[in-house]
Amino acid sequence: MPELRQNLATKEWVIISTDRAKRPQAYAQPEHYVLTHEQVLHDLTCPFCVTNEELDLETARWPSFGPWQVRAVVNKFPALMQQEELSRTFDGASRRISGVGYHEIVIEHPHHNTTLALMTAVEIEAVLEMYYNRGWDIRNDPRIRQIVYFKNHGEVAGASLVHPHSQIIGLPVVPNNIRQRTEEARRYFDDTGECVFCVMTTSEREKWERLVSVTEHFVAFVLYAAPTPFNIWIMPKRHSVSFMYTTLEERSDLAQILRVVLQKLYQGLNDPAFNLVVRSAPVKEMGNDYLHWHLEIVPRLSQTAGFELGSGMFINPTFPEECAAFLRGVVVGERVGSRE
Amino acid sequence: MPELRQNLATKEWVIISTDRAKRPQAYAQPEHYVLTHEQVLHDLTCPFCVTNEELDLETARWPSFGPWQVRAVVNKFPALMQQEELSRTFDGASRRISGVGYHEIVIEHPHHNTTLALMTAVEIEAVLEMYYNRGWDIRNDPRIRQIVYFKNHGEVAGASLVHPHSQIIGLPVVPNNIRQRTEEARRYFDDTGECVFCVMTTSEREKWERLVSVTEHFVAFVLYAAPTPFNIWIMPKRHSVSFMYTTLEERSDLAQILRVVLQKLYQGLNDPAFNLVVRSAPVKEMGNDYLHWHLEIVPRLSQTAGFELGSGMFINPTFPEECAAFLRGVVVGERVGSRE
Repeated sequence: MPELRQNLATKEWVIISTDRAKRPQAYAQPEHYVLTHEQVLHDLTCPFCVTNEELDLETARWPSFGPWQVRAVVNKFPALMQQEELSRTFDGASRRISGVGYHEIVIEHPHHNTTLALMTAVEIEAVLEMYYNRGWDIRNDPRIRQIVYFKNHGEVAGASLVHPHSQIIGLPVVPNNIRQRTEEARRYFDDTGECVFCVMTTSEREKWERLVSVTEHFVAFVLYAAPTPFNIWIMPKRHSVSFMYTTLEERSDLAQILRVVLQKLYQGLNDPAFNLVVRSAPVKEMGNDYLHWHLEIVPRLSQTAGFELGSGMFINPTFPEECAAFLRGVVVGERVGSRE
Repeated sequence: MPELRQNLATKEWVIISTDRAKRPQAYAQPEHYVLTHEQVLHDLTCPFCVTNEELDLETARWPSFGPWQVRAVVNKFPALMQQEELSRTFDGASRRISGVGYHEIVIEHPHHNTTLALMTAVEIEAVLEMYYNRGWDIRNDPRIRQIVYFKNHGEVAGASLVHPHSQIIGLPVVPNNIRQRTEEARRYFDDTGECVFCVMTTSEREKWERLVSVTEHFVAFVLYAAPTPFNIWIMPKRHSVSFMYTTLEERSDLAQILRVVLQKLYQGLNDPAFNLVVRSAPVKEMGNDYLHWHLEIVPRLSQTAGFELGSGMFINPTFPEECAAFLRGVVVGERVGSRE
């Protein structure tokens, strides 16, 4: 029988629809995304490849001398611009702010034909270090109120370029959706004196049935009220409002668990398209103690339609417990590496 | 230069990104969705076609004798079930409600190869009458708290069957998203004593630059803060919280404007995939006076990605004013009709 489940933190309901039930393995893609493109190690026409470094304005690289491992550049088609004046125009029903902000690309690896799932933990850690460093730099601009880190992998997840990359957008507003999540977490804290994300994480560790992987500092689990199949949260065990407050040791451990989770998806579902986001507190509200930063991975295995648009609710045809069990069963090797 | 715009009613920000600017005509689809399938008038393998009426459990038909024009049936793979007991289970962090509800299909026309855009206003009116009648019937079940009417047209909009149909879902909860919209509208009303949707509609009529069509009772406009290109609201001029309170005359007029708007999209953009939803008050809150029901049309012309997931905000590469001007320029004929 179908059931409705509520996410304790966001208060969002989902329908787990058993009548259209689909087994986790049914989501395996027919072909690997990266492999189907028969990509080469270096593509001279790719703006993110080695030798094309002049094409985009670089904001950071690591290491700073010798061949680079990770670079950050300004997006060639930025959604927002740093050079703009911040101005607000309230004209009756029309409320407008000039498009001030940051829109950067993190080029995750010099190789064109790899992906996070195939990288070593050390390589992934370099990507996270770049997130961290660019984040602090962008935060220093007083006009910025929210930093959104995200990654689109695969065409249906919105990736237009194959070369492995993530994006960082610095916004001059706190998005409504983040305001609402903050408000729900605050309300829970006021009611109980506890962080709702800590409560959820403790509960998942006790129940274990939705766990995917656990490391020293992190817990990865499929959401109890997962809107879509295989929707995963990677939660830090230590309560902290912002990714910006992580330690080097934590980021190193995060690279480990991220590699394991992404590789399980890669192997178990044949490199599905996915989005990855870092959910972290608004940069002017990093003093609050009821938010809890985390990483969310959403494989793009189904389509949203009119019902989701009209209600904000999702219909998930697969039990989260089955997705987690399936992923736990996928054995992850020590190192895969890019195909040279 | 890019700008951020805020929807006055929902308080949601969007980025109108001029650097990736795309002209409205660039969204024209290469081929018509319905035509590409080279559909026949009747398809014996289609569960919604004439002669296959026994396949699904019918809840209503019109006319009730002679050949039918519109039917409502129970979805063969319902997301929710009427027969369930309503039970709530709060087990620590896991909150669950049994899957009680309604999930019906409205078969909009006996012809397999037509679509709302090609129907006459009288035929569309019959569809709206069916929405109305099924709505009141479902509302009479005291367990139901929200009715969501929606339509998925085209594969990328989530339609799995070609035969023209919409869906009605009756929910045992008010979705979070609808709670938030209600709360924002209430707050605006408390501040100003006015309905925020009335204010927006008046403003659009005065400014005219985003208008698509106006009839005696309705105004269709592209949203000032449109999250995606061609995102359209059809607003009733008369302030009313619920579609359930419309008069026969208003529904007849709604059929007229809906036909005009859908035909403009059909002709101007070559039958794009779209979602259509009716946004209406929760059924136990039809006494409030700050909500204002309306219809929303979202052509599916772009992909959502990690940024939308992480922020709830959208990046729209096309100015709403240009989309509206483009649609105003599309001339709509008196009647197209299905291809016989």
